[in-house]
Amino acid sequence: MAHIQLNNDAPGIRSLVLYRPDTGKPLYELAQALLRAGSPDSTLTDAERELVAAYVSGLNCTSFCRNSHAAASRYLYGQERDLVDQVLADPETAEISDKLRALLAIARQVADDARAVSEAQTRRARTEGATDGDIHDTVLIAASFCMYNRYVDGLATLTPTEPAAYEAMGERMGTLGYVLPKPQ
Amino acid sequence: MAHIQLNNDAPGIRSLVLYRPDTGKPLYELAQALLRAGSPDSTLTDAERELVAAYVSGLNCTSFCRNSHAAASRYLYGQERDLVDQVLADPETAEISDKLRALLAIARQVADDARAVSEAQTRRARTEGATDGDIHDTVLIAASFCMYNRYVDGLATLTPTEPAAYEAMGERMGTLGYVLPKPQ
Repeated sequence: MAHIQLNNDAPGIRSLVLYRPDTGKPLYELAQALLRAGSPDSTLTDAERELVAAYVSGLNCTSFCRNSHAAASRYLYGQERDLVDQVLADPETAEISDKLRALLAIARQVADDARAVSEAQTRRARTEGATDGDIHDTVLIAASFCMYNRYVDGLATLTPTEPAAYEAMGERMGTLGYVLPKPQ
Repeated sequence: MAHIQLNNDAPGIRSLVLYRPDTGKPLYELAQALLRAGSPDSTLTDAERELVAAYVSGLNCTSFCRNSHAAASRYLYGQERDLVDQVLADPETAEISDKLRALLAIARQVADDARAVSEAQTRRARTEGATDGDIHDTVLIAASFCMYNRYVDGLATLTPTEPAAYEAMGERMGTLGYVLPKPQ
């Protein structure tokens, strides 16, 4: 049971944006700007952005965000969907581009101790083709999921256990993006 | 020097929202909704909200956010400004209300491991007069500063060292709130 009276039975972040739409609105706009629009010079696909979100949420052990963004990433990857579980298991051995691998290492560093993101890490990413926009977006996706994860966990929101629930969420996120849910 | 070319010489978060206004806009709107407007049933003052932000930023060792929000809190506390440094040194012995002390303990737990926020911690806060809105806002202020801190640190933005720079920022934040800076 959640730590506060949310007055709705939605899961995870959705219960919180329904409870308080005035903070929910910028929270969803941020997700849309980061996970869909992206920086003008960024080369990251929507599937890759969702994968960074799922990966960081996994590091933070927030099942709701990990499972829903992994489902969105699988939906957007389509036939290459197996890459998602490879990355969640170990990005260093996953069959992804070396550019994405280098960016995931930066994301991990941001979640762990952002002050320690190094020139060597950003140089590795650039050598593999990452742009400033890619580095910016990776850092802010990782940082923002350190917020979303703590918000969802800190108020003990509902975390569905059935995989089918996440598959439906992933398809919705993959098609509609991040739009505020209608009041229940 | 910052990890990416920001094309401006603003410090901390300001350099990032100038670099990318489309993510800057929801980031500032979130700060305004949390640090100024607050939940309808919340009893927290603006000075207390800024103090939670400064306290969490101190736990995350992000000097820019710690010093600027501490300065905003001092400005808003006015004659009671000494409370800010008392809390930054140790909330358990600071001369603040037991309600704020209980909320700061929740903020610390969110920064450390949000999954471990307990019924005992929220009960302690409620016993001292905290509302659902106070608990919600405390959790989201703490969570959001785990993002702002990582964003500022992960891209190695400029951190001024002169106390006077933060005093000016604190007065601006205390009077104008969070409005996007004009393009340089």
